[in-house]
Amino acid sequence: MPKPDPALYLPHIAYDSAIFGFSGEKLKILLMEYHNTGWFALPGGFVKTEETLDEAVSRGLKERTGLEEIYLEQFHTFGSLERWKPETMKTILKEQNVQVDADFWLLDRFISIGYYALIDYEKVEPAKDLLSDSIGWYNVEEIPELLFDHNHIVVKALEHLRTHLDQKLLSFNLLPERFTMKELQNVYEAILGENLNRANFQRKMLSLGILERHEKLFSGGSHKAPYLYSFKKSGID
Amino acid sequence: MPKPDPALYLPHIAYDSAIFGFSGEKLKILLMEYHNTGWFALPGGFVKTEETLDEAVSRGLKERTGLEEIYLEQFHTFGSLERWKPETMKTILKEQNVQVDADFWLLDRFISIGYYALIDYEKVEPAKDLLSDSIGWYNVEEIPELLFDHNHIVVKALEHLRTHLDQKLLSFNLLPERFTMKELQNVYEAILGENLNRANFQRKMLSLGILERHEKLFSGGSHKAPYLYSFKKSGID
Repeated sequence: MPKPDPALYLPHIAYDSAIFGFSGEKLKILLMEYHNTGWFALPGGFVKTEETLDEAVSRGLKERTGLEEIYLEQFHTFGSLERWKPETMKTILKEQNVQVDADFWLLDRFISIGYYALIDYEKVEPAKDLLSDSIGWYNVEEIPELLFDHNHIVVKALEHLRTHLDQKLLSFNLLPERFTMKELQNVYEAILGENLNRANFQRKMLSLGILERHEKLFSGGSHKAPYLYSFKKSGID
Repeated sequence: MPKPDPALYLPHIAYDSAIFGFSGEKLKILLMEYHNTGWFALPGGFVKTEETLDEAVSRGLKERTGLEEIYLEQFHTFGSLERWKPETMKTILKEQNVQVDADFWLLDRFISIGYYALIDYEKVEPAKDLLSDSIGWYNVEEIPELLFDHNHIVVKALEHLRTHLDQKLLSFNLLPERFTMKELQNVYEAILGENLNRANFQRKMLSLGILERHEKLFSGGSHKAPYLYSFKKSGID
């Protein structure tokens, strides 16, 4: 790997992305394994001097994971001192055959802006980059030990995802345009990691005012066909 | 003013704080006016190399505004290129009698982490710092033009405050320990900037499960005394 050029990037600023995947059943997260280290981490990167923060995240994510046009959103910026581990970074670079001096910019302290996304993992094919041995989906209940403060970042990302589910669900594109209340409940149960009472769930979702109910199709004489819903175009009132 | 020493701070990283004030009626925001420029801005600052981001915000806010022990929370990080205005920063420094070279660190591009707070402005006394001619409370409907992207930061802070009011109200300490539904409604109306229907408001607040209702005090024979409420200690269930 070529040595990353400090003149191209803003020093001290990084981003890390928690990309959650869902495909009708389990909630997963995308993790990378670094070359020859056995170390796992979230996909992340740096901001070029002439690009916006959001542009950097889109570009870097494409370069590192092969994923394009994913809607990512900021959730928190991490600025503790515990996340500063120059020896760890030195080892990662060494395993890429990059030798650096003690004052090399990547060994400095970084503040990292956390982004998250939620996508249908069956519709995408992540690809490993120059730094990684592998990239793949892991169940959120079975996340290995991650580098730096990345386990903490995942916890905060999950909290954010779960707290904002009602407001954000529309933008995640996880459901077909028209869906049943049962399909919607499946999404919530997988993401929240718990079973929900059917009647309470339905009452709550309807009270949010984000769903539009459509006429039943009386095909084949069945009167038990469930109602279909779609998200109102305007989102939450 | 002494020239800020680049060795003390992380370059390229700043914070800005939107401090909202409420005291029973109007929602206000704390703004500073820079020396000899007529320019207004949010109070902000920089992160020292050996302090966490949160520590930097607490320290800097105390130095710039005299406010101590205010609970501030992150809401968004701003990383556009439009916010990079070296000539503006140069003028501010010049009016402080600080002469700098073209490569001085404060003229570089900064990414800024936005923090917000909501406090009772009658309980605090902001004080101006070395950089400012004045510091004071402005009605949120009458905010002057601010430097850099600070008007945009205020808009995002207000959005965040309004969206998260139900979850955060407890931590703002704006109400006495026990309060009436009417007092609670006054807080919401001032922050949301609109009048709310009394019955709908009461129904919504009770359905959130964050309030505890207390017995009425039958003093003086009045049976029309309103119920008193307090926030449940655990916050939202």
